[in-house]
Amino acid sequence: MASPSSPVGLHRVIAPAGVLPQAADRLDTRRELWPDEVRIRVERLNLDAASFRQLESAHAGDGDRVRQAVLDIVAARGKIQNPETGSGGMLVGTVEEVGPESPLGLSVGDRVTTLVSLTLTPLVIEDGLTRWDGRSEQVPCDGYAVLFGRSIAAVIPDDLPAELSLSVMDVCGAPALTARVVGEYVDPVVAVIGGAGKSGSLSLAAAKDAGARTTIGVVPHQAEADLLAEAKIADAVAVADARDPVALSAAVEAAGGPADVTVVCVDVPGCEGGAILATADRGTVIFFSMATSFSAAALGAEGLAADVTMLVGNGYVPGHADRALALLRGHAGVRSLFERRL
Amino acid sequence: MASPSSPVGLHRVIAPAGVLPQAADRLDTRRELWPDEVRIRVERLNLDAASFRQLESAHAGDGDRVRQAVLDIVAARGKIQNPETGSGGMLVGTVEEVGPESPLGLSVGDRVTTLVSLTLTPLVIEDGLTRWDGRSEQVPCDGYAVLFGRSIAAVIPDDLPAELSLSVMDVCGAPALTARVVGEYVDPVVAVIGGAGKSGSLSLAAAKDAGARTTIGVVPHQAEADLLAEAKIADAVAVADARDPVALSAAVEAAGGPADVTVVCVDVPGCEGGAILATADRGTVIFFSMATSFSAAALGAEGLAADVTMLVGNGYVPGHADRALALLRGHAGVRSLFERRL
Repeated sequence: MASPSSPVGLHRVIAPAGVLPQAADRLDTRRELWPDEVRIRVERLNLDAASFRQLESAHAGDGDRVRQAVLDIVAARGKIQNPETGSGGMLVGTVEEVGPESPLGLSVGDRVTTLVSLTLTPLVIEDGLTRWDGRSEQVPCDGYAVLFGRSIAAVIPDDLPAELSLSVMDVCGAPALTARVVGEYVDPVVAVIGGAGKSGSLSLAAAKDAGARTTIGVVPHQAEADLLAEAKIADAVAVADARDPVALSAAVEAAGGPADVTVVCVDVPGCEGGAILATADRGTVIFFSMATSFSAAALGAEGLAADVTMLVGNGYVPGHADRALALLRGHAGVRSLFERRL
Repeated sequence: MASPSSPVGLHRVIAPAGVLPQAADRLDTRRELWPDEVRIRVERLNLDAASFRQLESAHAGDGDRVRQAVLDIVAARGKIQNPETGSGGMLVGTVEEVGPESPLGLSVGDRVTTLVSLTLTPLVIEDGLTRWDGRSEQVPCDGYAVLFGRSIAAVIPDDLPAELSLSVMDVCGAPALTARVVGEYVDPVVAVIGGAGKSGSLSLAAAKDAGARTTIGVVPHQAEADLLAEAKIADAVAVADARDPVALSAAVEAAGGPADVTVVCVDVPGCEGGAILATADRGTVIFFSMATSFSAAALGAEGLAADVTMLVGNGYVPGHADRALALLRGHAGVRSLFERRL
């Protein structure tokens, strides 16, 4: 190899020069590995929910056009990164080759999921995504991807269906960070906006296990409220449109709020104001939605004179994958909600 | 008045219905006050740095076109909110009328600055901004603005020039939140990216006063490094391009890092990766720049497997204005940096 490799993948950045892979316009997708890299034979991509929704909406739900849009992105950029949402997703596959200096502890043949975003993972699609109808976030795919020295990949456990594990690990940062923040409060009230979704249901279970006094799951309509109530993972269930700050804060209030910790898990724009308004003074809002607007959050809190801490939901917390899988195994209601979505 | 007023200004939202004023496309700017409102006679607008930079760049530095762009925004929206950056700024003026139920404690004739963003403040410009050349963030203006029940405005102190106070209060959230976060660590190393700027210099002083072991001010070139060294408000000064993650983290490391707390105060896009890379495990990054991309921060940390807490810089912390003015009075170096920029 011409240049030495970097654990964070700088050697694979083609343009612009000097940026990290996540910020790059284009990555080097060559098959040959640097000594600390790993190549994965991809079997399935899992698009980020906000990205898939944007593509679906931009192409009026036409699956062929959505598929072509994903192929175009990968051909142009050497990775999956939706130009509108900035987000990508994750993948599942089998380890095909391990560089002699890789620190990841993987072996050829291991079935793994990546826990770093597809927005920084060199990717080549080799089958034209012909097995995908463009109508779901789960994309059957043949191709290869490259992991760097500091990437994170988890071996898929034997006791769960692979699709289920993938679905859990895709959002495993949310319950881990929720648990950490909840643990910093004494007997807090925790509201999870989008409580019946993937990251939402895990976050509800994590909050309870971490010592929440009351957990409130907020959902957009009665059908989801019934599902969430049936899953028995929230102390209270509230129905509100998360984009309507007044309705959202009133619903949280009526369910036992305001919240000391509010976790935003819905992938629609415009939820910042409501989340802030539903949160108590000195409370914390954790934004996990990729549809979050930085300026709307910053200026929204200022405009409401709200003394709340606002966290950018970091998808990485050490041990997050194992902890999320443990939540799924330990909470039948979480598992049932996940299985409904497969 | 037809409808009752809301302390957060919902009654002034024309479109879309039900959103908070900050998220609104258009506000009602009628002169007549609801009982809990205050009307300010505006003398000066202070545009947000990221917004002004975007306008300047979009109009190739042509002051007349920048002025017209601001007039167009206010005419269309009833407030100042740059459609590209989402940000606004603040204003200074004199209290013209106080509604009988206003809780703000202001009196007619008080000279005040608003501490809530112009993005949610109903504003009418009456002089066409004819006294502004479109080449500076400071905009002389005649017109009026309306404060809601829960707005925040600070009376301008007598012992400082008004322009200086305004300039300080514009960024007073940054040092207040920096101090709070620094106080949660024991003897932390604190790096401030953009340490010679307004929010940066205040944050450096606030970090030291709050117990930082070492403060590192990062600036883009030697001229600013000399200025910052002369001001004597940072223990170490480092020169690096904040958009170059590798250069930035290396510079912070060489100056005594990695940082336990990294404060991002530069209004250019693309600083997320470098700030994360310059921060120690279990450290905190505070993003104060309106140019911050939520997804770049979230996915950047995940992609680097970085266990850092990332905060959206909330412009409101109780007592922030008084504390920032006290920092200016107590640190001659901060004051000299501010006075250079007036």
